[in-house]
Amino acid sequence: MTSPAPSPPKPSGTPLRIGVLLFPGFQALDAFGPLDCLNVLSRTQPLTLSILSHDLSPVTTKTPSSPSSIAQSILPTHTFTNAPPLDVLLVPGGLGTRLLDSEPITASIAFIRSVYPTLQYLITVCTGSGLAARAGVLDGRLATTNKRAFGELRAWGPDVEWVAKARWVVDGNVWTSSGVSAGIDVALAWIAHVYGEESARGVANGMEYRRVTDADDDPFAELYGLE
Amino acid sequence: MTSPAPSPPKPSGTPLRIGVLLFPGFQALDAFGPLDCLNVLSRTQPLTLSILSHDLSPVTTKTPSSPSSIAQSILPTHTFTNAPPLDVLLVPGGLGTRLLDSEPITASIAFIRSVYPTLQYLITVCTGSGLAARAGVLDGRLATTNKRAFGELRAWGPDVEWVAKARWVVDGNVWTSSGVSAGIDVALAWIAHVYGEESARGVANGMEYRRVTDADDDPFAELYGLE
Repeated sequence: MTSPAPSPPKPSGTPLRIGVLLFPGFQALDAFGPLDCLNVLSRTQPLTLSILSHDLSPVTTKTPSSPSSIAQSILPTHTFTNAPPLDVLLVPGGLGTRLLDSEPITASIAFIRSVYPTLQYLITVCTGSGLAARAGVLDGRLATTNKRAFGELRAWGPDVEWVAKARWVVDGNVWTSSGVSAGIDVALAWIAHVYGEESARGVANGMEYRRVTDADDDPFAELYGLE
Repeated sequence: MTSPAPSPPKPSGTPLRIGVLLFPGFQALDAFGPLDCLNVLSRTQPLTLSILSHDLSPVTTKTPSSPSSIAQSILPTHTFTNAPPLDVLLVPGGLGTRLLDSEPITASIAFIRSVYPTLQYLITVCTGSGLAARAGVLDGRLATTNKRAFGELRAWGPDVEWVAKARWVVDGNVWTSSGVSAGIDVALAWIAHVYGEESARGVANGMEYRRVTDADDDPFAELYGLE
């Protein structure tokens, strides 16, 4: 469960094409933790970002049935049907993933299934791994997810080798993280892997963020009774 | 520089009216760290949220001169001129604060100056304290800010008692935090103060976030040569 050996820093000049998949009821920090790491990275490395959803309506953090009384709305740049080619897909989680048969969620799952073979990397945060699991792309792989929702998520991917105690898990080109704030740590670990440790440290220090650098360092598995 | 004694948990039933002030070039995590804490809090406590900007255009994380190659855009709900009454104003920072004489920034500063006397709490993240300083509301107060930008920010508020080594600082009803990710810690400290420690712990655990609970615990002051 340790990270793979670092690849050499990515040669600059070639933009890495990132996509983030949003649906109503995504968890804001699941998306904006990694995205802000990428925003900072993109000051020194060329990136493109597509913000993808099932349609071009602003995507709210709140579902109709959400217990939250407040919300924020983000503008998508593309739909799943006109998405440009992507190298990396980032999939956040959130309560919206629980609307199992809703159009945004079934469309998200279909998109993950169709785009995955073209990706260099798939990165999920929190219950975003549940969407990847339902798309079938985690079958036979090690993966993790939100620790409070762990039991529930197991049923979404019976053929996934779910890892309870992990801040994040890397299996092949799939990087899955634990709940919400763990997305920042998996993003920084992925930046270290692709662009080198110096880049990851620079982003973390610029954000005054104390990284978890050990993928196995996860006190929340125990907190939620998974050990 | 320790937090004030906790006030009794806020009686439920009365929504606290939160506003977040956005401008082009705000740092995404400065805003969405605290906002996502509030999103989770709002599952159990009544809150309202106004997303305020100088006009109703989507607010981008990128300025025209930004070195970032990627961005996200957020929908505001109100302008500064039609803002509803607020109990709490949250002010993120970001490279956009450096566009000193731009319309969004001068309008933001004028709004902070006019609304401050009506607030129960002002919370700033990162260089958001620079906007509050330029509005004059930090004069004679202890405050902190982004550590890499500390020298620059000092000039924006020559009558502010800037504190170099602090994850966050509380002075009266003004809560200022250090850079970017410190906004999550000041938000959780503020939630503990207003709603009780149990609420803050619940939000942090739900987000699988390891809080900094000591306001003086700040390794970034030393990292950026401020000690």
